[in-house]
This record gives sequence, structure tokens and C-alpha cells, in this order.
Amino acid sequence: MSDSNSSVLFPAPYLIYLGDETREDNCKTGFGIAEWATRNCIGQFRKSDNTVSIGLADMTLDQAVKAGAKSLVIGIAGLGGKISASWQADLLQAASLGLTIVSGAHEKLAQLDGLTEAANRSGASLVEIRNSKARYPVATGEKRPGKRLLSVGTDCALGKKYTALSIAREMKNRGLDCTFRATGQTGIMIAGSGIAIDAIVSDFVAGAAEALSPSANELHWDVIEGQGSLLHPGYAAVTLGLLHGSQPDELILCHDPRRIYNLDSPHIKIPPLNEITDLYLGLGRLTNPNVQCRAISLNTRGMREEHRAQAIAKVAEETGLMVFDPVSTGVSKFVDALDAS
Amino acid sequence: MSDSNSSVLFPAPYLIYLGDETREDNCKTGFGIAEWATRNCIGQFRKSDNTVSIGLADMTLDQAVKAGAKSLVIGIAGLGGKISASWQADLLQAASLGLTIVSGAHEKLAQLDGLTEAANRSGASLVEIRNSKARYPVATGEKRPGKRLLSVGTDCALGKKYTALSIAREMKNRGLDCTFRATGQTGIMIAGSGIAIDAIVSDFVAGAAEALSPSANELHWDVIEGQGSLLHPGYAAVTLGLLHGSQPDELILCHDPRRIYNLDSPHIKIPPLNEITDLYLGLGRLTNPNVQCRAISLNTRGMREEHRAQAIAKVAEETGLMVFDPVSTGVSKFVDALDAS
Repeated sequence: MSDSNSSVLFPAPYLIYLGDETREDNCKTGFGIAEWATRNCIGQFRKSDNTVSIGLADMTLDQAVKAGAKSLVIGIAGLGGKISASWQADLLQAASLGLTIVSGAHEKLAQLDGLTEAANRSGASLVEIRNSKARYPVATGEKRPGKRLLSVGTDCALGKKYTALSIAREMKNRGLDCTFRATGQTGIMIAGSGIAIDAIVSDFVAGAAEALSPSANELHWDVIEGQGSLLHPGYAAVTLGLLHGSQPDELILCHDPRRIYNLDSPHIKIPPLNEITDLYLGLGRLTNPNVQCRAISLNTRGMREEHRAQAIAKVAEETGLMVFDPVSTGVSKFVDALDAS
Repeated sequence: MSDSNSSVLFPAPYLIYLGDETREDNCKTGFGIAEWATRNCIGQFRKSDNTVSIGLADMTLDQAVKAGAKSLVIGIAGLGGKISASWQADLLQAASLGLTIVSGAHEKLAQLDGLTEAANRSGASLVEIRNSKARYPVATGEKRPGKRLLSVGTDCALGKKYTALSIAREMKNRGLDCTFRATGQTGIMIAGSGIAIDAIVSDFVAGAAEALSPSANELHWDVIEGQGSLLHPGYAAVTLGLLHGSQPDELILCHDPRRIYNLDSPHIKIPPLNEITDLYLGLGRLTNPNVQCRAISLNTRGMREEHRAQAIAKVAEETGLMVFDPVSTGVSKFVDALDAS
């Protein structure tokens, strides 16, 4: 059934839409596509200089179409997956110009007045990553062959997707048999397939995760993009369903050493890392009694070199686990360890 | 927003539909309505003597209509909330006779060939408890006033709804200020309102649970019907979202002493009860640091009296908690304890 999601496709090259968004946290979709699907990106659309930049060339809609853009990909992913009213005029114009509109929001593009009609007139498509019609069964919890790695987090938006993509790339570079399994809008936009797990009805979340990484040969790795956090009061249900359905052999706990409180619920403090790994492992054992966590992936983006090294050393001492930062230290030592075991 | 669910209403009296279902476990909806909304039930429809009986008078569709039935309520709730093809002819006939068809399945009544047309011709309604269009925000995890009790379980289908209904009835009999909050199809059919929490998109499960039991005065109790189990590989996501959003002050752990393995996944053994209360309390503290569990609700339905007493004594010794069985011992001692604290 995961194959039904391979059909999520839209033509390159892309213009990445950033609208009037001023919070970098809300633009992780745009940053992710620009970094991991660079060759498919032609530019970025920003309403003003105050808008977040993801480092691509600024273009108007007309300029992008003239330069050959085929899709307008919405690079903003705010709390709750809403479509902002402030995007409406731009999306209407883009659809009128024939650009495929690609959205990962929970809210539907079709609810924007006139958008469906504009797309119909120009022949453009509206692609909704999170509004797949695919249905999944209730998870059975039965162990299936193949090896699985899942990135999990101390909070949202601190590197679970980046960590999984980095590990999958390193495995592929070494010729290991592996597949990156996307579970969120950005990952799906990068990989071209996957399941937007947070858009699945809760009874079927774990079942969708089982379908996403089906039985495979014993040496094959599924590297699964994590979602949310067991410590997030809004999204923990998504995280637990994904954990149970993924049946990971290996967990990587992703953390940002500067994140003291939950991003969306700042009254909630993030507990010590060892408590968090114990929590994930305890719950993960329900569907894979042999699950283990041997590494922490630390997000040190923007930290000075000496602070970064200190942070990595501190977490290594605190947890007794291998600590890497996919950006600054890379993931090769971790993949060495996996490959040797 | 929970008010949008108060609109789930259908006319009494009801004929309870049991089709050809032979597993009592799959008829908990029918049993629940017959027991808790007895005055609204006129009879039961069974295809043959092999069908489960919920103890109501057997009637054909014609007999029920002549006796004044207004709604056909589907009393079957199997794995995954499917609509069985074997029900089709009966539902078509019922709709043709003008009966409102009430379903709690995930699958939609409207997908049954000809049912919508038959209902339109006779003026009957199709009521889908789990297919509400209501939208909910992402949970904030912010504590809100009022007292809350949530029933949780070592597995599915062992008494969470029954326990919550029993406690709410006892509180009401004493004149305490309380509301039963239904979260599943049967509970909603009994209460006439609620949110089918397992039908909510996973990103919004905890948010829906927050909406279901809104801010109340400091002495008001919301008695919330639990769903699934943290130990169920398919449904744990639902359970965790409901736990986080409900922010319970009191948990009641519901258990059946004869349940050694998970009902749907018999390769999974149910761990010791103290580990299970620790698991629920540990996760519950994220949104209510003061959550406690002071009692176990034991389902001893069908056990001989001496075995029942032994089972209650054994669990009390094992856990050090108060143990009651809402059927045989009642819940008055537990409500005494709550009321005194």
C-alpha cells in the first residue's frame, strides 16, 4: 500500500514559496528541499526582504515561469498545517500561470476561493501531500524481516529528517542496500514518495508505518524519518504510532543542546537525555524487543566551533553513547558501527 | 468545539443490529447500548440463532418498524471499524423502511451500493458517528481548571467505558458535579455526544481530547472514557493522544485477570500491572505532573464468586492499590476516596 504514495509527484524545476514567513523554524520544508533536492530548485519567492531566505535566487512568479519553473512548492510548515490567507493572491497567480501548486498543509488547497478554477483554466495541478486517499489496516505488531532505523527526537524541528537523510546518503555512498522512508511533507517532497504520517487517522497510524517499511531482505536497511516527539503534548500520538509500526532495530535520538523547553509549549521542560532514550526504548520494545539506541544526533547549526565540540563532549559524557552532528562531524563513524554489528 | 459533537443524535426507540456476528468481543457496542440506554432499545436483529444475543427481544425489521422503531443502530464493532458486505441487504431494507441507520464504523455507510438512494427515497437518515467533519487545533498541553478522571487499560475491550460510566453514575447519584465524556462509538451512542477520538487525524488527537473536556469549575469532574491501550501495537497512538489531551488528575487502570496476551496480537504478553501504571503515569505527567492512579478496575464478568474474590485480592496485593469491579463490588468505595481527597 505504500506504493500508492509513490504517485505523489510533481514536475521540476521548482520555485519555492516562502510568502511573508519570518520564522526560520516555520520554513524547514523550504530549507530541506533547497538542501536535499538542490538540482530541482530554480529559485525562491519572497514577498519582501523581511521574509526568511533559504539561499536560492529570488524570483517573481513571472520570472520563474520564464526561467522554466514547472511547480510552485510551498516551503512553509507552521503549527497545525494551515494555509495562510496571505498566500491566496500569489497561489492564484501561480496557478493562472500554469504552475503545479504543491502543498503539505493539512488544510486543503481547494478551499482557497478560485484556486481550483484558476488551475483548471490553465491546466495546472494542485498536489496535496497530506491529503492522500490511501487507507491502511490496523497494525498487527508482528515482526517482519529487514533492518530498520528510526530517528526520534527530544522535541520537534531539531533534525530528525536531516539525520535520517544523512545516514541514508552515507549508506548509499557505501553501496549498502537501503531506502530512505519519508514520513513528513518535506521528506516526501525530497524523496518523491512516502506517507504523511501525521495526516493519518489515529487508529491507523501504526498500520501506515508498517506499510511504509514493508518486509525486506535481512540485510536491507529502511532509514525512517521520525516525526514529533514523545515529549510533545500535541504530537506524541503521531510519534508513538510511528515507533510501534516501524519496529526499529536502531533508534537515533536527535537533540538540540540549546533546546531547554518544548518549542511549541514552553512551559514543558525537556528531561535528561537518558530518561528520554529509556522512554523511547521502553515503548519501542512492544513491537521489537531488541530495539537499541547507540547514538545521539546533535543539532549544532550556527554554534561556534568550540561550543559545538563542548556540547558534543558533554552529551557523550552524560549519556555514554556515540554523539555525532550530521553537519559538522558527519555520520560515517555511526554507519561504521552499524555496518560492523 | 466539542459542542459540534452534541449534534450526533438519532431518534429512539432503537433496533440493535447484530447481523451474523458470532464473537461477543465484537458486539461490545450492542451490549453497551442495551445496558446503559436500555429504555431506548426496542429489540435486537439477529440473522440466525448463531448470532450473538445482547439479551433484547428478537425482531425482524418489519416487526421492529411495526413496534415503533425509529433507528437501526449497528451494534457490531470489529477490528478496524469495517462495514461487512453481509450487512448490505439488511441495511438496504432498513433504510427502505424509513429507519435511521446509525453506524460507528470508520468505513462510510454511503459506500454501500444503493444505501444513500434507499434512504433518500424513504426519507431516512444515515448517521456516521466516526465521520464527523469537526476540526480541532493542535494540543497546547496547558493545564486547565476542573478535575478529570480517565479510564485506561492493559488492553482493548476489557471495561474502560463500563468503568467510566459506572463512576459517572455513582457521582451523579451523590449529587456531585460531573460529566461523562464519550470517546468511542458506543459511548457516544449512549451519551448522545462526544468525540470518536480514534477517527481523528493523529496530529489533532490530543487537541480533540483537550476540546472534549474543556475548562470547568474547580470542583467539576469530567469522567473520560479511555480508548485502546499503550500496550496495543495498533491503537497506542490513540491512547497516548487521549492521555495527553485529557490531562487526568486520576487514572483508573482497567484489567481482566484472564487476559494474559493482547487480544488482537496474541504474541504480545501483558506485563505486570505495576509496570503498566508506571508507564501511564510517566507519560501522563507531561501534561499533568500531579496525575495519580489509586485504583484498579477489574473485569470479572462470568467468573465464579470465589474466583472473583481471589482475583481481586491477588491484584490488590500485587499492586497495593484499591481494587474494585464495577459489576460485582460497585464503585462506591472508590468514589468515597475521591470525594474525601
